[in-house]
Order: sequence, then C-alpha cells, then structure tokens
Amino acid sequence: MSTPLHDLALRDLDIELARYRADYAALQVQQLALDITRGKPAPEQLDLSTAMLALPGDGDYVIDGIDCRNYGDLAGLPALRALFGEVLDIAPANLIAGGTSSLETMYDVLSFAWIHGTGATGPAWSSEPVKFLCPVPGYDRHFAITESFGIEMIPIPLVSDGPDTATIRELVAADPQIKGIWCVPTYSNPSGVTYSEQVTRELLSMDTAAPDFRIFWDNAYAVHPLTGDAPPVLDVLSIADQEGHPDRPYVFASTSKMTFAGGGVSFFAGSPDNVAWYLGHLSQKRIGQDKLNQLRHVRFFVDAAGVRAHMRKHQQILAPKFDLVTSILQRELGNSTIASWTQPSGGYFVNLEVFPGTAEHVVALAHAAGIALTSAGSAFPSGDDPRDSHIRLAPTLPSEQELRLAVEGLCTCIRLAAAELVRRNHRAGASRESAPV
Amino acid sequence: MSTPLHDLALRDLDIELARYRADYAALQVQQLALDITRGKPAPEQLDLSTAMLALPGDGDYVIDGIDCRNYGDLAGLPALRALFGEVLDIAPANLIAGGTSSLETMYDVLSFAWIHGTGATGPAWSSEPVKFLCPVPGYDRHFAITESFGIEMIPIPLVSDGPDTATIRELVAADPQIKGIWCVPTYSNPSGVTYSEQVTRELLSMDTAAPDFRIFWDNAYAVHPLTGDAPPVLDVLSIADQEGHPDRPYVFASTSKMTFAGGGVSFFAGSPDNVAWYLGHLSQKRIGQDKLNQLRHVRFFVDAAGVRAHMRKHQQILAPKFDLVTSILQRELGNSTIASWTQPSGGYFVNLEVFPGTAEHVVALAHAAGIALTSAGSAFPSGDDPRDSHIRLAPTLPSEQELRLAVEGLCTCIRLAAAELVRRNHRAGASRESAPV
Repeated sequence: MSTPLHDLALRDLDIELARYRADYAALQVQQLALDITRGKPAPEQLDLSTAMLALPGDGDYVIDGIDCRNYGDLAGLPALRALFGEVLDIAPANLIAGGTSSLETMYDVLSFAWIHGTGATGPAWSSEPVKFLCPVPGYDRHFAITESFGIEMIPIPLVSDGPDTATIRELVAADPQIKGIWCVPTYSNPSGVTYSEQVTRELLSMDTAAPDFRIFWDNAYAVHPLTGDAPPVLDVLSIADQEGHPDRPYVFASTSKMTFAGGGVSFFAGSPDNVAWYLGHLSQKRIGQDKLNQLRHVRFFVDAAGVRAHMRKHQQILAPKFDLVTSILQRELGNSTIASWTQPSGGYFVNLEVFPGTAEHVVALAHAAGIALTSAGSAFPSGDDPRDSHIRLAPTLPSEQELRLAVEGLCTCIRLAAAELVRRNHRAGASRESAPV
Repeated sequence: MSTPLHDLALRDLDIELARYRADYAALQVQQLALDITRGKPAPEQLDLSTAMLALPGDGDYVIDGIDCRNYGDLAGLPALRALFGEVLDIAPANLIAGGTSSLETMYDVLSFAWIHGTGATGPAWSSEPVKFLCPVPGYDRHFAITESFGIEMIPIPLVSDGPDTATIRELVAADPQIKGIWCVPTYSNPSGVTYSEQVTRELLSMDTAAPDFRIFWDNAYAVHPLTGDAPPVLDVLSIADQEGHPDRPYVFASTSKMTFAGGGVSFFAGSPDNVAWYLGHLSQKRIGQDKLNQLRHVRFFVDAAGVRAHMRKHQQILAPKFDLVTSILQRELGNSTIASWTQPSGGYFVNLEVFPGTAEHVVALAHAAGIALTSAGSAFPSGDDPRDSHIRLAPTLPSEQELRLAVEGLCTCIRLAAAELVRRNHRAGASRESAPV
C-alpha cells in the first residue's frame, strides 16, 4: 500500500478494508495467547544468573567483618555500594543499597516527603496541593504512584534529548506547587530517549518557585544497551552540587533487570543531606537490609567489569528480539503512513505510534485476537493519551516465535483500525457534504 | 543484704554505699565492651539456618508453576502462605507473604491508612488528629513509628493476661480519634506476657467510637517459646469475624527470629477486605515479592512441623541464657528489695524493674563501665517511663560468658544507683527536717 489510506478513493478504500477484515478474521482463527504487555525479562535472561541460586553458599556470610545474616547496616553492604558506586558513578557514601524493588524505594521517598517533608527546606507535601511534571510518553507505574497520592500530573513533551526544558523552566519558575518531576534519563521507558548532559544540567540548575523541588531520577536502564555500550552515566549528584542545588536529585537504580526481577537489589542515591534524611525515615521502618541478597550480588558480579560483562549477555539475548519487532513493523507498515516506531538503542521497550484515534481500538482488536498489549494511553498520566495513538511494546519476555506472531498480528490490527477510522471519517465527511447547509 | 536500703541507719547505709562504689570501681577497671541492647539472634542461632545460604540451589526456581526469579505474585508464594498459614492458624487466602521486614509491613500499613484511609469506613488518618493506645512496657520501635507520624500515644498498663481492657474499653468508646492499638500478643516485648483468649476477644469485640479502629497485632514471637511448647495461636481473624469486627485486626509476623534476622520473610494477614486494601496499595509500590527468598524458606522448612522442630533448636540455645540472667539476678539481688524481673517462658527479653528513680542512672553507670543497655524508658511512648524504673534486657546475642559479665556488672550498677538515691533522699529528708518551718 503506497497510497495513504485517506487519499484512497472510496471504492479502493473499501477493497482495502475488506482485505484487512479478512486478515483479522484469519488472525482470530489462530486463537493466539500471547503477552507483550510488561517489561519482564525472558527466562533465558534469568538463566544468566542461575549461579546466584546457590549463593552466597554454605559458610559464606561474612564480608568486611559484617555478619550478613543478622540485623543492621541500614545503608547496605559497603562492598555492594562500592561495586555499584563504580557502575553508576556515585560515591559509595552517597549510595544506599536496599531491598528488591526500586519502585518501592521511589514510593517510600515520595511518602516520606508526603508525610514529613523533604527536610529543612519545606513542610510536609501533604499540607498543600502538589503537582508533578510527567514527561510523556513515560512509565505508567510512576504515574500510578503519583496519582495514588492525589498529586496533579502535568504532561511534558519528551523530545529527542530529554524533556522539553523550555516548558519546564516556565512552569517551575511560576508555580511553587510543582514539587517534582519523574525522569528516566537513560533509554527512557518507553521511548528509549537518553537525556543529554545539557538537558540534565538545565534540569539541575533552573530556578524553581518551590524550594523543595525534587527530580526523581530513575536510572533504571543505566547499563542496559541494546547496541554497543551504554553512554557514560552522568554524575548528577556532582552536577547538582555544581549548580547550587545539591538536594534536588533523588537517584534510583536496581538490578531487577540484571539478575532476578523478583530478587534484585535496589539503590537510592542523593546528597549527604538527602541520604541522612532518607536513612532517618527508613530507620523507622527497618532494622537493616537483606544483606545476604546483597552479598549474593557481590559474590556473583565480583566487580563493575563483571556487571558490564553480564549486561553484554543480556544484550545478546535482547537485541535480536528488538530487531525482529522493528523489522516486522518495517516490512508490514514501512510503506504506510499509519504508524511509526522507535528503534531503541537500549532499554526494554519499542514506542509505537499508530494512526491517531485508533490506539485503543488496536489494543482491543489485539486483545480479542489473543494478543495482550499494555493498555493504550498507559504511558500518559491517568492513561490519557490526547491523540489516542501511543502503544508501548515490550518485546523482552516472549520467545522470538511468539514475538513474531504477536507483532504480525498487531500489524493486522493496526491496519484494520486505521482503515475503519478512515472509512468512518469518509462517511461522516460525505454525510456532512450532503447535509443541507 | 536483708534489710531494705531505705531502712538502714545512715551509718550502715554509708558503709553499703562505700562498698558498692568500690565494686563499681572494680567493674570499671575491667574495661568491658558488652552489648545487651537489642533482641538480635546469636551467631549460634543463625548457624541453625546455614543450609539456607545455598538454597534454593542451582536449577531450583519453579514451584507450583511459578518462576520465582521473575516479577509478579504480589501476595507471595502460595506454598509459603500455606506453610505459615498452618503455623499461624490463618487461612492462606488471608495471609500475604512479603519482604524481609515485618516492621516495614507495619509502617506501610500505617502509612497506607495515613495517606489513603483504611478503606470504605473512614477518611485518611492524616486528615484529623489520631491517637494510638500503647500497652506498656512495649516495643520501642512500635512507639517510634507512631511518634514519627505525629500520633498521640496513650500508655495502657499491660497486666498478666494482656492490656487492661477496662481502661481501653472506656477510652475507645469515648474518643473517635483513637484509631489503633499496638499489641504483641505472644511473649510480649519486653514483658513476656501472653494475651489470654478472653482479653483477645474483648479487644476484638468492644465498641469503639472510631469506625476504623484497628488492632496492630504483631505476633512476632508466636512460635518462640523458651520453655515447653508455645501456646496455641489464637485465630484472631475468626474471632474478629464472630464478634462483628472482621476488619479490626491487622496481623503481622515474620521469620526474622527463625531463619535470618536480615533475610527472613514477613507476613501480613487480615480479613478479605483488609487483604484487598493492603494489596491494592502495595501494588503501587511493588511488582511482586522476593519469591526466591520465599522459595528458600519453603525448601528449608518443608512444612509446619519443620518450623516447630527448628524453633526447638532455638529454644535449646536461648533457654540457658535466660536461665543464666535470672539466676544471676536472683543470686545478686534476690534478697534485696531494689529490683524485680520477669522469668519469661518465651520471646526475647527479660523485663527488669530497678529501684524507682534509678533506671536512667543505672543505664548510665553501666554504659560508663562498658555495658551497653537499651535506653531507660525505651519501653514507654516517647521514652517516658514515669517511675524511671524499667530496663529491658536482651540476653540473646551475647555469649554466656559475656552475658554473665554483663549481668553481674549490671547488678553492681543497680545496687550503687539505689544506694546513692536512698542516700540523697536521706540527706534531703535530713535537711528538710532541720530546715526552719
């Protein structure tokens, strides 16, 4: 199909539509049961860490004089903080090694700010209306947390080098209720965008009406390249310090997509004041961290080079899946004007833009054909995609065969939904034209 | 010393005082460095679970069709919920297996109620003043959480079969701001008291002015007897249901003092509505639990009988330590009237009552002699022991030799502090007597 759908003559459009309906009927007959909803590691990726299942091993529980079996050491194992401090370019003193979920760490940090305030600079966030900036498309679970606190979310366009700083600058300068922004600086979920140093520096330096404005810097994919090496991690704590706002960034990371998604280690990093603030509140909740799981990670990775070597193995598994997705999209839809997509160089997602006004319909069609996709709009605050065109694809979990079937089926749905919308618009236009003025 | 200190003639008192001072000077010369502050397991107890360090083991990660390495299963592994459901007499559907810290679970539950309310029955707790009932002596970390939320704490006397229900009944009937009570129903921290079924039923049945009154039922020592078997666990969820208040109890437990203090599994239990409420908020924080650690526990314990057999090994290690503490106290202070203590049949603490007005001084004297004790007053809200007489002893961590030195040294401090206070009062009384009216 080289002629855009909406330029087709009505008769040709109806022929295309009949063909797409037949394709879809054939798809339904297959009774697929495929799931590309979430960014879950594939079993082959989890197999890379199989050795951890028997670690630290009988008799191995002491490191640096610490008995990892007992309570204590709320900041986490020094050895693991040093190891990941090198990976993330963060001084170990500023890096706290925690439990298995960085999402939980983010929720906790927000709840500490909500209940107690961020420290000396402001009141409890719950004491007045709070707004957050949400670069879109973004991570649905970030937005879900924000929404659960009743925080107003303001979408900010994410462009090729990060969120639109001109818009942000204007908003944060004017409104003291804007207390935070969600950022996924490397291989952003789901667009794959990596923030430039300039955007990062602007975010860390700009004037804000709220003295306690915070950047929730979720570096979830810092070492997760799909092609080549990951870009150097930006030393946001030092940049923030240089720019006179040392307490602005709350930094998060985790090994959930390095070792085991259900049994990794999460990290929090911040300025000395932020670390003291975080540990102060955390000490009300916990008497220590799961140091055995942290020791397990130290034994498994050994050092930062071990992390990088391990991530290359992930890349070898994931890159072909992403290539498969984009090659099918290109083959099926490359000559159409009804869809576009990213070719990410890292992270866990392909960002798909379908014909405006059809994303929800595409997801529903796919669902009815046994292909589970993330809800349309999920990458937008409150699930509200104003163009109804965005779909997040998560190619990591399925096998290549499943992925092939799912994406081919998806293309059938994309074509059918677009053609049906164009046909409806055609009819509406025709009836408008024939209506009395 | 058979004559009570305050009945001694001044001359005899001074002789005693001189002797106690000499004893204390001799203690200081020893330059001890002992710590009986916290209820931490001893290395020998942690050794009981050494086999877990290599579990689940290479290739073992699937149970009941669940790949424990990946995300998901927020309610925890069904196999572990069934196993501990039997131990705790809770239907697995009502029991959630979580992370490594039950204290964190309690904090989370309180913060969910604080931010969002307890469900359909009431507003966010943060929207109005909140008060909690705090049976005393109690667990300092419970009180610290409560205080960190700015909740007013009302001490309630803990008597031999639980907290004083007559006092509680009157308070909760009158004051809708009383939203909760902390309970450690089995081998209470630090008094060792176990709640009777009658007290439990009264707590679960009484009328409360707050429709969203909650019992934080921290069954931390449910299977931790020091002598014989633990009492049967009371089925509080069924009792609450029978009494018409199914949503009143939030139940907590953990394996921190069964397997590894830093790497156990915590549990939350409640009515179907409470479980749905808890999981609903938890789903904002986490994408699943650390199922590998849960699988590790299933493999290690195998079944409920495995848990009970394991706890008998803990008992064999701990009982001699508790016997040692109480026998030294009896030998050193048994004939005095300046101290009394509990002989707990389970749990982690000995509850020591020293001469009123001297607990802080005793702790300071011990500290100066190299014996670290929990702060005086720590078992009371805001650390305020009105009689300044309570000290919590934690005999589990030190070796028997260390424990002997620590408790003998402590007795020296108790005698000295009491004698000094009596001597001061004597002087004050004398000066009052000689003062012009």
